[in-house]
Amino acid sequence: MPSIAEQIVQCLHDALGDVKKPVALHEPCFSGREWGYVKECLDTGWVSSVGSFVDRFESELAAYTGVRHAIATVNGTAALHVCLLLAGIEAGDEVLVPTLTFVATANAISYLGAIPHFVDSDEQSLGVDVRKLRTYLQDVAEMDPSGCRNRFSGRPIKAVIPMHAFGHPVDLDSLATLCRDYGLILIEDAAESLGSHYRGRHVGNWGSLSAVSFNGNKIVTTGGGGAILTNDPELARKAKHITTTAKLPHRWAFVHDQIAYNYRMPNLNAALGCAQLERMDSFVAAKRHLAERYRAAFLGCDGVKVFHEPVYARSNYWLNVLLLDVDQADRRDEVLETLYSLGFLCRPVWAPMHKLPMYAHCPRMNLGCAESLERRIICVPSSAGLGGA
Amino acid sequence: MPSIAEQIVQCLHDALGDVKKPVALHEPCFSGREWGYVKECLDTGWVSSVGSFVDRFESELAAYTGVRHAIATVNGTAALHVCLLLAGIEAGDEVLVPTLTFVATANAISYLGAIPHFVDSDEQSLGVDVRKLRTYLQDVAEMDPSGCRNRFSGRPIKAVIPMHAFGHPVDLDSLATLCRDYGLILIEDAAESLGSHYRGRHVGNWGSLSAVSFNGNKIVTTGGGGAILTNDPELARKAKHITTTAKLPHRWAFVHDQIAYNYRMPNLNAALGCAQLERMDSFVAAKRHLAERYRAAFLGCDGVKVFHEPVYARSNYWLNVLLLDVDQADRRDEVLETLYSLGFLCRPVWAPMHKLPMYAHCPRMNLGCAESLERRIICVPSSAGLGGA
Repeated sequence: MPSIAEQIVQCLHDALGDVKKPVALHEPCFSGREWGYVKECLDTGWVSSVGSFVDRFESELAAYTGVRHAIATVNGTAALHVCLLLAGIEAGDEVLVPTLTFVATANAISYLGAIPHFVDSDEQSLGVDVRKLRTYLQDVAEMDPSGCRNRFSGRPIKAVIPMHAFGHPVDLDSLATLCRDYGLILIEDAAESLGSHYRGRHVGNWGSLSAVSFNGNKIVTTGGGGAILTNDPELARKAKHITTTAKLPHRWAFVHDQIAYNYRMPNLNAALGCAQLERMDSFVAAKRHLAERYRAAFLGCDGVKVFHEPVYARSNYWLNVLLLDVDQADRRDEVLETLYSLGFLCRPVWAPMHKLPMYAHCPRMNLGCAESLERRIICVPSSAGLGGA
Repeated sequence: MPSIAEQIVQCLHDALGDVKKPVALHEPCFSGREWGYVKECLDTGWVSSVGSFVDRFESELAAYTGVRHAIATVNGTAALHVCLLLAGIEAGDEVLVPTLTFVATANAISYLGAIPHFVDSDEQSLGVDVRKLRTYLQDVAEMDPSGCRNRFSGRPIKAVIPMHAFGHPVDLDSLATLCRDYGLILIEDAAESLGSHYRGRHVGNWGSLSAVSFNGNKIVTTGGGGAILTNDPELARKAKHITTTAKLPHRWAFVHDQIAYNYRMPNLNAALGCAQLERMDSFVAAKRHLAERYRAAFLGCDGVKVFHEPVYARSNYWLNVLLLDVDQADRRDEVLETLYSLGFLCRPVWAPMHKLPMYAHCPRMNLGCAESLERRIICVPSSAGLGGA
């Protein structure tokens, strides 16, 4: 009987066919107008914070996601930081956030002196378990005239940041209802989920503010980059102001009216982004096709299943996830070692935030599902190119 | 008798010859290997945080400046932020900083909850007046076992950040002596002064940490970008760690050991930077040649002089500065209007920090010289291309 690692290798070969090794976990695809647009930047000299590609990237991103306003930033972390700032998060506030996320989500909370309060995930979305969170808040939260408060720490609970893990949307309608019930601000960390839809509508439309990422490993990339999304014109105006050093418009005067940030995406990076956005439909199609190939290849594989998008979702399948059965959880590192040694670049999920030294003492609910998922998730090669883009 | 504005226009024509209008204040020059390196990024797919151009850019920047370690960042503001963080600046500390600087210098202090303490400039360097600062500290500073303290606010005075305005080095030896006398950490804001030397040695070598910028308007650009410079290997190691989310090296695990930042320069931007750095010698020569042409053209112009590098300096002349005579200070905006209307893009100095609403209540010395300079400085077109690069 072959080991689970050997079985997985066989399934990867079945899914990917005769592929050149090593197979990247996720690499970008620049077969569109990337060079043309980037060259245009160099030829005109407009590579920096002024230039038409930034405006164009923002309006095309808004059009693609159906969110009214997009403000391009240097990266997704900067976008998250500004989302939280504009949501009014302050030092001493608690912000509910899944423990299973990339560290940037928790860091952005810390930049404001606020405290991450860790939430469990569920197996249907790999993101916030909304039902469990509601039960937990019945115990932990008390409402006073200023809003929701943690009855144990005494601190305000101001917001919740769902992160759509590996591109799979959390149950946004249920979460939005919960937020209304408890007066919480909803901020979507959509860093990984450009191209993903919840009940037919693109993610980023449920949060009062949302953040996306265009890091090199994302479905589309600007080298480094991110964006703030919002349907609120006043928040959009503030986001643009605070990401551009709060400089007041003037032909020559350098006057700034608040402490602010240099978070604007350079035009050079936006040029790359404009070309990449043109390919979104084909990238999503290719990545969904690849997910289907993985699903078919692993049908007969005991001890592991391919994660499938939630029933309400049409996901971008940013990274394809293998989920080991509970009784196989202790084989994760053996599988990772085997795949690596054979040139299939793969990874586990992030170390849960509550296990990192700087976040070990933050408040949290029971995190049993997240801890189980941590031992069982293996992400496998997922570039759009593998799906035919 | 022609007005001072008319005289200045005539001198600009004399200095620049038959130049196409509008003449930019500062535009980049991409006539080297920029295309080739950027295209190599796209062709290999290495546009993001992993890639050989970042390492190469860092080592070539270190070699160029003679500072042992360079850590590339998303921009100069991020570099300053990390310099201050690694220098141990904490909430409630005061940091001495010129009031005549770009707002990023003061903002970086604020990000840490520290307080800018504003210092006057002198007419020889346009930067920190070291002699006046020494006299001021004799009044304001008291030394206790933990270091220098502001006897009026009771807060620690931890550091001083000279900013080499428009590329002209401040008197670094005198300032370094003052820092030793008062136990202050010296951090150079060298954002504008890549290519500038103080007594034969490149700036950035006096601070325990220094920051440079590669914004689109700088002598060389990466679109957006910056770098931390330090001669201390341990600070360099920490700077790289904290600018890359404090991720511990591992083939696949995502473990981070402190609250940190996503401040790494993307490889795409570093590729542009590598090509630009190759041109530094010719850019500095062209900009110094242009400064000489301005000097000659304005020799007979009453009421205004062209700012000349300090005696101890060999400056990059990032932006050429016209300095109106004191009795012409009320003509500044008239001159700016006239130059703009004729297609010579120009600018005044920054609004001094102590006049901005968010910094109006910060501690400060008498700022008489800075306030005089504010009324008298006009920067004129200074691209390397105008000097023959």
